[in-house]
Amino acid sequence: MELTVIKIGGNVIDDKAKLAAFLQAFAGVGGYKILVHGGGKVATDIGRTLGIEPNYVNGRRITDEPTLELVTMVYGGLLNKNIVAQLQAAGCNAMGLTGADGAVLPADKRPVKDVDYGFVGDVKSEQVNGSLIRVLLQNGLTPVFAPLTYAQGSLLNTNADTIAQEVAKAMAKHVPVQLVYCFEKKGVLMDAEDDESAINNITAKDMEELKEKGIISGGMIPKLENALEAVAQGVQKVVIGHADELAGLISGQAGTSIT
Amino acid sequence: MELTVIKIGGNVIDDKAKLAAFLQAFAGVGGYKILVHGGGKVATDIGRTLGIEPNYVNGRRITDEPTLELVTMVYGGLLNKNIVAQLQAAGCNAMGLTGADGAVLPADKRPVKDVDYGFVGDVKSEQVNGSLIRVLLQNGLTPVFAPLTYAQGSLLNTNADTIAQEVAKAMAKHVPVQLVYCFEKKGVLMDAEDDESAINNITAKDMEELKEKGIISGGMIPKLENALEAVAQGVQKVVIGHADELAGLISGQAGTSIT
Repeated sequence: MELTVIKIGGNVIDDKAKLAAFLQAFAGVGGYKILVHGGGKVATDIGRTLGIEPNYVNGRRITDEPTLELVTMVYGGLLNKNIVAQLQAAGCNAMGLTGADGAVLPADKRPVKDVDYGFVGDVKSEQVNGSLIRVLLQNGLTPVFAPLTYAQGSLLNTNADTIAQEVAKAMAKHVPVQLVYCFEKKGVLMDAEDDESAINNITAKDMEELKEKGIISGGMIPKLENALEAVAQGVQKVVIGHADELAGLISGQAGTSIT
Repeated sequence: MELTVIKIGGNVIDDKAKLAAFLQAFAGVGGYKILVHGGGKVATDIGRTLGIEPNYVNGRRITDEPTLELVTMVYGGLLNKNIVAQLQAAGCNAMGLTGADGAVLPADKRPVKDVDYGFVGDVKSEQVNGSLIRVLLQNGLTPVFAPLTYAQGSLLNTNADTIAQEVAKAMAKHVPVQLVYCFEKKGVLMDAEDDESAINNITAKDMEELKEKGIISGGMIPKLENALEAVAQGVQKVVIGHADELAGLISGQAGTSIT
């Protein structure tokens, strides 16, 4: 059976109506599936109320101990469990996981170089416990990953995009895998001003040209490079597109496919 | 293989050193095992900081919507995931669960009679998804239950003692089960003032006499009646004793056994 790994970020999570609509669509996806969710503003809001101010160094948030407790509560508890409960109501047998659960996502605590990012984990596909994920899928369960990995008895704050990618790469050794990134645009746009200008398909060959022409720039460059790397490592297709169009992203009728 | 279901409450959870020692002992328990944990003061403390004041009616806490969000964060996230991460570090392949995960503990939202308890769930052994628990155990996983069940897309606040008991009764249909309640005393005491006076064994026959003599009173009465009911429904033994003596409780050398 095919496996679809789908990632949603804060833009969906922060909007109750959007999230509910997305989860309905997700419940309808056929075959094996996995959901990876990001954080969202709610952690920052709750943190503020608890007196945990975001601490940025070079534009990146530092996960100190209070922040780790905050994201463990909010990502691993509030968001993850509410998503699971909503999926159950929609008929999808979801199971919420952090990387510590069943040791499914062991990671490396990011080493301190110029910056000490604190309790941040980097996970690689070789570390992913693919056999546990298989057992869960084969028993009719849909894993829902919070953006938390772990090492040495501690949870670690981890980028949801990376988790989705490394899980997809790991599972590609067992089953055909499609990786879908939902974000706030309809795909990689030819014209940044025109949301209807999504490029249908991008290959490694196209990349250089698109970069030279400036069509792909900024944060989209590493996103696409990671997608191409995932494809190089056995993921059949990576699709980037809008969370509102999940069915179209999976069928290939919406979004940008990276192959 | 035998299954041991072990419940710990707030008195262990609220004390970091006690909890660490308990989890180390728990990791050493042989055979199949399940941990059920309660809440603890941390939810009240975090709730206060967030402006969620405990709301009691007739001495029982009401779970309104903000309180449900609070316990989802704290029980399902902070406590459950930190316990799982610590168990992983101790070599126990723990997996944290709420009742929504894998629909493992469907429950009934408590009906409104004199009091509306809000988002509170009552779970019965017939509702417990024993086949999922079996799959997890057979794959070398140790389920760790937060005191949350679910119904109709919503998590529900649920008493941890009840979860432990209903899970134990459900699993007794599949494997021999021992149920261990850890609390702050060494067992059912003959003399409330003497912590070394734990009664070794209590049967249904003994109960009436102990109640008449006033040795068992107050909250201990329903606890023991529930234990006897669990035994009547196939649980081999219920043990009540101190969290510090886990190995002894399991071997029968400490605590009070209800058989």
